[in-house]
Amino acid sequence: MGTACTNMVLRQEDFSLAAVYDPFANEKQLNELPQYAGNSVRVYSDKAALVKEIDADVWIDFSRPDAAYENTRFALENGMRPVIGTTGFSSKQLEELTNYSKELGLGGLIAPNFAIGAVLMMEFAAKAAKYFPDVEIMELHHENKLDAPSGTAIKTAELIYEVRGDHPQGHPEEKELIEGARGADYHGMKIHSVRLPGLVAHQQVQFGSAGEGLIIRHDSYDRDSFMNGVALSCRKVMEIDRLIYGLENFL
Amino acid sequence: MGTACTNMVLRQEDFSLAAVYDPFANEKQLNELPQYAGNSVRVYSDKAALVKEIDADVWIDFSRPDAAYENTRFALENGMRPVIGTTGFSSKQLEELTNYSKELGLGGLIAPNFAIGAVLMMEFAAKAAKYFPDVEIMELHHENKLDAPSGTAIKTAELIYEVRGDHPQGHPEEKELIEGARGADYHGMKIHSVRLPGLVAHQQVQFGSAGEGLIIRHDSYDRDSFMNGVALSCRKVMEIDRLIYGLENFL
Amino acid sequence: MGTACTNMVLRQEDFSLAAVYDPFANEKQLNELPQYAGNSVRVYSDKAALVKEIDADVWIDFSRPDAAYENTRFALENGMRPVIGTTGFSSKQLEELTNYSKELGLGGLIAPNFAIGAVLMMEFAAKAAKYFPDVEIMELHHENKLDAPSGTAIKTAELIYEVRGDHPQGHPEEKELIEGARGADYHGMKIHSVRLPGLVAHQQVQFGSAGEGLIIRHDSYDRDSFMNGVALSCRKVMEIDRLIYGLENFL
Amino acid sequence: MGTACTNMVLRQEDFSLAAVYDPFANEKQLNELPQYAGNSVRVYSDKAALVKEIDADVWIDFSRPDAAYENTRFALENGMRPVIGTTGFSSKQLEELTNYSKELGLGGLIAPNFAIGAVLMMEFAAKAAKYFPDVEIMELHHENKLDAPSGTAIKTAELIYEVRGDHPQGHPEEKELIEGARGADYHGMKIHSVRLPGLVAHQQVQFGSAGEGLIIRHDSYDRDSFMNGVALSCRKVMEIDRLIYGLENFL
Repeated sequence: MGTACTNMVLRQEDFSLAAVYDPFANEKQLNELPQYAGNSVRVYSDKAALVKEIDADVWIDFSRPDAAYENTRFALENGMRPVIGTTGFSSKQLEELTNYSKELGLGGLIAPNFAIGAVLMMEFAAKAAKYFPDVEIMELHHENKLDAPSGTAIKTAELIYEVRGDHPQGHPEEKELIEGARGADYHGMKIHSVRLPGLVAHQQVQFGSAGEGLIIRHDSYDRDSFMNGVALSCRKVMEIDRLIYGLENFL
Repeated sequence: MGTACTNMVLRQEDFSLAAVYDPFANEKQLNELPQYAGNSVRVYSDKAALVKEIDADVWIDFSRPDAAYENTRFALENGMRPVIGTTGFSSKQLEELTNYSKELGLGGLIAPNFAIGAVLMMEFAAKAAKYFPDVEIMELHHENKLDAPSGTAIKTAELIYEVRGDHPQGHPEEKELIEGARGADYHGMKIHSVRLPGLVAHQQVQFGSAGEGLIIRHDSYDRDSFMNGVALSCRKVMEIDRLIYGLENFL
Repeated sequence: MGTACTNMVLRQEDFSLAAVYDPFANEKQLNELPQYAGNSVRVYSDKAALVKEIDADVWIDFSRPDAAYENTRFALENGMRPVIGTTGFSSKQLEELTNYSKELGLGGLIAPNFAIGAVLMMEFAAKAAKYFPDVEIMELHHENKLDAPSGTAIKTAELIYEVRGDHPQGHPEEKELIEGARGADYHGMKIHSVRLPGLVAHQQVQFGSAGEGLIIRHDSYDRDSFMNGVALSCRKVMEIDRLIYGLENFL
Repeated sequence: MGTACTNMVLRQEDFSLAAVYDPFANEKQLNELPQYAGNSVRVYSDKAALVKEIDADVWIDFSRPDAAYENTRFALENGMRPVIGTTGFSSKQLEELTNYSKELGLGGLIAPNFAIGAVLMMEFAAKAAKYFPDVEIMELHHENKLDAPSGTAIKTAELIYEVRGDHPQGHPEEKELIEGARGADYHGMKIHSVRLPGLVAHQQVQFGSAGEGLIIRHDSYDRDSFMNGVALSCRKVMEIDRLIYGLENFL
């Protein structure tokens, strides 16, 4: 994700890449790498050295969970607004970082998912469920995915459940001729997980009512899809004065 | 639509059918019709007679444009909240009826479209366009539809245009090998109209961005789909104190 | 189905409706029913009377299983080619009727499904499975359907199985976080049954392979869809000299 | 495509990579390239040298049109069955190469498209058109595609046209409120070209008839999708005794 973020910042006309931090970097300058020839941007393997020499508005971070808490705190301490794509913060850590950001009056975002399309899909699904309590979720992924349903499908089901509560679906006397045909049951809602080679990450939330249907579908083809959300977040954290959790707050 | 509305009111547990108004009715009681055996509800062919004998909260009306203005005014005058599914009111008529409803402090709704799913589709599409300026609309209807694009497709495009403005799509040097391949152009947005036997009324709004796609689709199979919106509106007009225009205001 | 068949025969320019047989009919002429005014076609409640007075090429029959065997035999005996849409014939009955038709040199068809689109979907799916062994079936029906998966889905899976045999799909270590997420398992193939109001009868057969996907989908909206298959069959039985089983033999 | 082919041959258990031919190669051995460490396969920049030292059953070639004719002839001369993915052969060249292959009794294939899914889609579409003359094609590609409709869409339309001929679709009095809404017209069939970022190459052939619909859809995500077709062809050319044109002949 570091490379994707670097490229995204370089592509945005109103952004300027202040520096790159990589604890394992061998380079001192980005342009030592052939694909970045012409980009004279400093690369640091030491955070302390970085903040001495560099002044930046935003700190973008997709590092591992163990480093992310430390880095988020470090960014705030040094006046940089964190935009963090790491999952696994504890509630206590989130509370502490949020309080600290409020004291400093610094904006910031921690988000488990930066795909704007996926976040919109979930928001729309939750809204539609107010009027369409009957809904099934189909999520389709490549054949190497281990968990079924996907995390996004479960998150979507939770959001819909908050709106409509328990609601048994299908005919009360329906019968599975082959076990599992009706999918996973989440408070009456059914979730179906398809796994096929060639697929990447797709989800369809399908609502039905007398005489009509409503479908909200998100297709994710590659990690590029996260970068629009990261760019949006970099702009939005400049306008707020505390750390928030979840990209949906910016949409 | 009269029959569909009658059945809807009878089906709702918290509704009570006060009376039926049909200027051409031969019956005096609904139960003179075999399918309504057991429903002793008065049928009136004369509005004046109706209001003398009947007290109702809501007046549901899907009549022809020439009768609808008259009826809406009549409903307000007699203390009934109008829920009107007729199109073709002039701006002047709408303004006048709205002002009159305010004076009386009576709620009401005039809406060109009561399909909740279609209204949500348009709302979601307009919101998604903020983050996904690249969008094409495919609308699919039965082969006897005369106009292309459909009214709903044009309305959707207008709502998206309000959000994203002009935005040329496709490659600047793209070339139609057969004229019309790229569809209708609405401020850069493309609209495609499919007409096939077997279809009813369907619309897919498809957004694309680097590495991801978002699709919002509505399928309408029959007029039953309007009845959920009418039922919702009957409940909502009880809570407001003026006439409004458009079902989206209740969602 | 009797009404649908009657209407279909009347609509085809090269067909002529010889007579209608209905054991419970009160009418003697079709034009006693208001919707058939102008169609002077005899209606019989007695088969024996019918064959004395009427000469017909084809006998169309969608009656109940107990009557169907009797009627098929009766049609052949009287020189009419049977086109039968009833399920539930025993193998022995089918064999006996087939042999009898051969003796007489009379064509005929017994078919459990007259939807040409559904039959093509199954044929295409079986062919595609030769090159795409990874496949999942999603079938979507109205919320009052009792059985899952649908008969068509199971039939499709059987046809695919004949081509590709056993083939475990998904990651060997995949794990259902909620039971049933991965659907029904048929020799490694997964089948997912969606039930929602507003839907009629739909099936999507989805194949995946490295870098590509192939989808075959059939949507059935009403019984009209069977009539093209019945009309086709009436023409085809005139060209053959024995009874056959299954519409796929005519496609 | 050279790399993709090399990897495909190495992955197939029943294939053995005899040699690699690249007129611009610097290497003499494939294992001089880090990703092929351990694969001791000769690399030739000279065809003449290759055939002196190497004995192979099949010659796979995706080179430029000007080289492809020469190479195909060369392969046949040296007893190798050509599998050629280059377009742009003239009819005269194809005839000459086919005749030459017959003399030698050597199998071979020249194909403009090796995506099995796309070839099946076209075959199924042509068959379905016999029973469903009403059809529209939607093809969806990335926003940098210059031509609309795509070559595959036009090829599909041609195949359908061969089956159903001219057939005006839509209502005779239908009217485009915005020009182009009804798409490109090909003998009455409509073709719609969608261009959006995030998309790769997709095509949906949609048939409609009274009460039913049939959809055949192909999604192509990357060039990997061609390799199954190349592998299949390498096996099939061993079983035939002449050069043929078009992957459909092997399906």
